[in-house]
Amino acid sequence: MSDRAARPTAHEVLAAVLQIRDGTLQVLAWRRAQPPDAGRWALPGGLLGDDEDVEASVRRQLAEKVDVREISHVEQLAVFSAPHRVPGARRIATAFLGLVPSDADPVVPADTTWHPVDAVPDPAFDHVEIVRAARDRLRAKLSYTNLGFALAPRKFTISMLREHYAAALGHPVSATNLQRVLARRAVLVPTGELVAPGPAGGRPAALFRFAERTLRVTDAFAVLRPPGRPPGEHARAALP
Amino acid sequence: MSDRAARPTAHEVLAAVLQIRDGTLQVLAWRRAQPPDAGRWALPGGLLGDDEDVEASVRRQLAEKVDVREISHVEQLAVFSAPHRVPGARRIATAFLGLVPSDADPVVPADTTWHPVDAVPDPAFDHVEIVRAARDRLRAKLSYTNLGFALAPRKFTISMLREHYAAALGHPVSATNLQRVLARRAVLVPTGELVAPGPAGGRPAALFRFAERTLRVTDAFAVLRPPGRPPGEHARAALP
Repeated sequence: MSDRAARPTAHEVLAAVLQIRDGTLQVLAWRRAQPPDAGRWALPGGLLGDDEDVEASVRRQLAEKVDVREISHVEQLAVFSAPHRVPGARRIATAFLGLVPSDADPVVPADTTWHPVDAVPDPAFDHVEIVRAARDRLRAKLSYTNLGFALAPRKFTISMLREHYAAALGHPVSATNLQRVLARRAVLVPTGELVAPGPAGGRPAALFRFAERTLRVTDAFAVLRPPGRPPGEHARAALP
Repeated sequence: MSDRAARPTAHEVLAAVLQIRDGTLQVLAWRRAQPPDAGRWALPGGLLGDDEDVEASVRRQLAEKVDVREISHVEQLAVFSAPHRVPGARRIATAFLGLVPSDADPVVPADTTWHPVDAVPDPAFDHVEIVRAARDRLRAKLSYTNLGFALAPRKFTISMLREHYAAALGHPVSATNLQRVLARRAVLVPTGELVAPGPAGGRPAALFRFAERTLRVTDAFAVLRPPGRPPGEHARAALP
């Protein structure tokens, strides 16, 4: 193996935790009190410990900011490794995407709050790039997986779900089409319950839930499926 | 940021480069001459240089083993970070998936050869886990993207393409269904050329090509697409 590394290098993990709040896709960030980048907003995370892998590390470090039981999905996002992405000693970052359902309201420390993903004020280091990558990964996966389960409450009307998809995707979504395509692919199932109409009247609306709460591809080409396996199963384990 | 890292830690990049050879999905590996793990088969790679990010590093290190112009697709696969994945000083690995079309026959060094992905003899360190992750990522993406372009030759008959998909997926695939689904999704287009039948006779077969040679999701839910954007475009940039 070649060996050109001489500069001291540390490894950190960072998490872009996203939630739909007030109809907007938002990201959890904390305000740095110390230099470098004091006063700027940073993603939760920190140095990898000697005795942990990156998955254990991100869980440990997120637990310092938020009740991790409220996080419905975590996945590796990408490595950010530009040589001077932080001042001083080099840091390689493994970034994660985390999602919180909209009916959770996690208790967070005084230095930590939520910002719209497209309007993080004074972001620290390259963290705005990580937020964008997380947003784009979420948008892509909403279009070919059942990942909506990780943003939505346990039960929802189609109208509520449409608002979640529109907020995450950043553009309007048709409720009729959403119900048709997600029901046809067996992503959504009716709970059998109805909710009363709002003050404006109208008919009671049916409540739905996601059929599964682990990630799967919702429309893997059926012809590429191994004989006898259900849709999505064969693609599930390999999703990044 | 918390700081629990005291053990010296290096960062390496590794690449699982896959190609269909002799009807089997194979991976490029080199035989280690020096300890640790002397005599075992390892993936191409090495330490991250001070002046490069992981993407530049993997291109540099692959160039020592193979003509990188023959690599049709490279993407970040995952970080492998178990604390004792290699003996001695800790190494965190960023692993990449690389693909080579089946009509290329790269010149490789004397210590380097191809092995079937499911039968790498005496694999070094945790490299067999990386090979499995690369194989599984490829299989998943073949089922919802146009990634076949990176394995197939420039032009092919449907029968040839079916053999590629079957080799990559590890199970039989129907040529009729493959053509139907890939043509319907505009993944394949006819070149207008025909090839003569083989010695067994039969009719001339039509040659096809992939419509695009960059990765896109082939069936992003149309209802989730931003108004006025073509299929797949909005999901493309964010694919891991």
